[in-house]
Amino acid sequence: MPETWLGLPEDTGFGLGNLPYGVFSGPGGDGRRIGVAIGDQVLDLTAAADGTDFAGLLRAGVLNSFMAAGRPVWREVRETITGWLIDEAHRERVSAHLVPLAEVELHLPFEVADYVDFYSSEQHALNANRIFRPQSRDEVPRNWRSLPVGYHGRAGTVVVSGTPVRRPHGLRRDGDEIAFGPSARLDFEAEVGFVVGTPSEPGEPVAVADYAEHVFGVCLVNDWSARDIQSWESAPLGPFLGKSFLTSVSPWVVPLDALAHASVAPPRQEPEPVAYLREPGAGLDLALEVRLNGHLLSSPPFATQYWTAAQQLAHLTVNGASLRTGDLYASGTVSGPERGQWGSLLELSWNGTEPVELAGGTRTFLEDGDEVTITATAPGPDGTRLGFGGVTGRVGLS
Amino acid sequence: MPETWLGLPEDTGFGLGNLPYGVFSGPGGDGRRIGVAIGDQVLDLTAAADGTDFAGLLRAGVLNSFMAAGRPVWREVRETITGWLIDEAHRERVSAHLVPLAEVELHLPFEVADYVDFYSSEQHALNANRIFRPQSRDEVPRNWRSLPVGYHGRAGTVVVSGTPVRRPHGLRRDGDEIAFGPSARLDFEAEVGFVVGTPSEPGEPVAVADYAEHVFGVCLVNDWSARDIQSWESAPLGPFLGKSFLTSVSPWVVPLDALAHASVAPPRQEPEPVAYLREPGAGLDLALEVRLNGHLLSSPPFATQYWTAAQQLAHLTVNGASLRTGDLYASGTVSGPERGQWGSLLELSWNGTEPVELAGGTRTFLEDGDEVTITATAPGPDGTRLGFGGVTGRVGLS
Repeated sequence: MPETWLGLPEDTGFGLGNLPYGVFSGPGGDGRRIGVAIGDQVLDLTAAADGTDFAGLLRAGVLNSFMAAGRPVWREVRETITGWLIDEAHRERVSAHLVPLAEVELHLPFEVADYVDFYSSEQHALNANRIFRPQSRDEVPRNWRSLPVGYHGRAGTVVVSGTPVRRPHGLRRDGDEIAFGPSARLDFEAEVGFVVGTPSEPGEPVAVADYAEHVFGVCLVNDWSARDIQSWESAPLGPFLGKSFLTSVSPWVVPLDALAHASVAPPRQEPEPVAYLREPGAGLDLALEVRLNGHLLSSPPFATQYWTAAQQLAHLTVNGASLRTGDLYASGTVSGPERGQWGSLLELSWNGTEPVELAGGTRTFLEDGDEVTITATAPGPDGTRLGFGGVTGRVGLS
Repeated sequence: MPETWLGLPEDTGFGLGNLPYGVFSGPGGDGRRIGVAIGDQVLDLTAAADGTDFAGLLRAGVLNSFMAAGRPVWREVRETITGWLIDEAHRERVSAHLVPLAEVELHLPFEVADYVDFYSSEQHALNANRIFRPQSRDEVPRNWRSLPVGYHGRAGTVVVSGTPVRRPHGLRRDGDEIAFGPSARLDFEAEVGFVVGTPSEPGEPVAVADYAEHVFGVCLVNDWSARDIQSWESAPLGPFLGKSFLTSVSPWVVPLDALAHASVAPPRQEPEPVAYLREPGAGLDLALEVRLNGHLLSSPPFATQYWTAAQQLAHLTVNGASLRTGDLYASGTVSGPERGQWGSLLELSWNGTEPVELAGGTRTFLEDGDEVTITATAPGPDGTRLGFGGVTGRVGLS
């Protein structure tokens, strides 16, 4: 891999092989601009692209127009930026558009169209069944190995990392009483999100093989969950207010093209899925980490996910549902086979019965003032690791 | 009620007391324009409002900017239009902007932000429990009388009346086999939809009493449902592809201010709900009719709904979730106590076991070529009935 004239340290997560897209405001310009993270700086792409033939796609202060332009344009822009950062001839011009990351405010990078959340970690489904349906003879729900279970969440409450997390109020069962109040079982869910760029037509399912034509990139997701509210409300139509108060995403969208080295074979699927899900496409070798007040709680391995992102997209559209630019679909809680790899407090504290040890105490569920941060790295070129930036949120009173 | 110089027949559903808003294209102008239905014509409001102080809100070819402006503006615009249609002095100018309804194409009247579907008919919940959970000792789900059960649907596949209904493909259980193919149990659901105009802030629940500050108006909804797909996929996270292929809405949004005469006391709620749901607000005396290929199948009475639209809105936001302009929430299938008042084929054919008699045959679920039309009327001023325009769709092959 060629080097950039920026002379980045080898262990930066935002090296030349990554180039994730985000939206920022701060020094060096007005309003919200599209940026690319490089080392500990942001390249102001809205400014730097002025005069190029794709400049018009990068002026809206949000990624949607660029994401809608499709893979050939995504590739052209990525190659152009890479060229700027390698070729000394661009150094002076491009340097003028670099802003320290520490000085900018990061915003929600794209307008969310529809938000779908899947449930595709086998270990998470096993854990949930053992916790909530211990009398069941099924290890996982009976439909679970035949299709990627999923549901729609609230797009309007997807927010960027750093947004305060108000503890939601709601109804919960307390013995024989139905009580209203702040959730006593507030949880995180460590997930990976896939952002749709190229839309699709109604009635035209997207095949697994066409996944990379539609998915622009990948971010991290914390699907905050109020377990007590969720538990009481969910029959028979699924989660609603237990999830809809907030979903946080990381500020940087890592392009699919950056993740070529992270491609892995997914786990074997048994029984073999029906035709539209049969070819799984690639898994992604992302190493997630979840920290609570700085303490490493869990290290979920995304490579263990049962259903791939390509299968999820094929499933989402097989009924004829169309995709819009800005659709976000998330993996569901990522939990690996080992206890230290589970992606929620529900699992880590076994529904509150086995408190988790922290440096400064124990936790069953989240307390006010707690800060949860999810990060991830992935294999990049030449043995480097790509970073995802983190998705973080601090719990406060509603 | 004063009369309009248009000299409308007494039985028009689109009289001076209604004035529903929609979006149309066709003769007399370019592109999509905002219109008001009056008799058998459309008043081109985008053109007629030119020069008024609210003209800027009516130029986008979609209602969202106007809906975002809030109740005082909605009222001002409605009073202005009413004045134009009463006062002979406006006759010549306004007449130039009237287009026959028969000559226009109607479009989705607003951009849908989030779409939520409730489940608030007691009879529908009773029927569903008897059909799907006959072994249950509960008449309705145990949480059902404590809160308005609901879930998020797919906003991107909400379409205007008349859009063809492609039969969705998906997975279903067929004995011990899991089969993929076109749904064999395609159904309609007759519902009423509520369209949010004024947004709300995160963390600030909307009280029942503030309902009319946020809800712009009312439309009809057909929440098409593939019962076989829904049945297999729904555990444990609720409906997904069995619903997400299409949801049809009527082209006219009837303003809340038009429905003052339709206000009724809702059914008694027992047990008494918790504080944020205690004051129910008003029910709405809408008389729905569902026709299949012109044959009257059902006459669901909306006045029998257990939870009111104001309670649904309070519930939707009580966890701190914010509202956006364009949020659509639907009532859930409207089914009255009598069999001829049930709002889905699932109920009318008792899950396919008791075929419904039509003029030209019988039905359990929808066949290709079937056309479903839902209409409604409501009490208006001076003994008139307001119409809703219909929501219609013809089933074709995927």
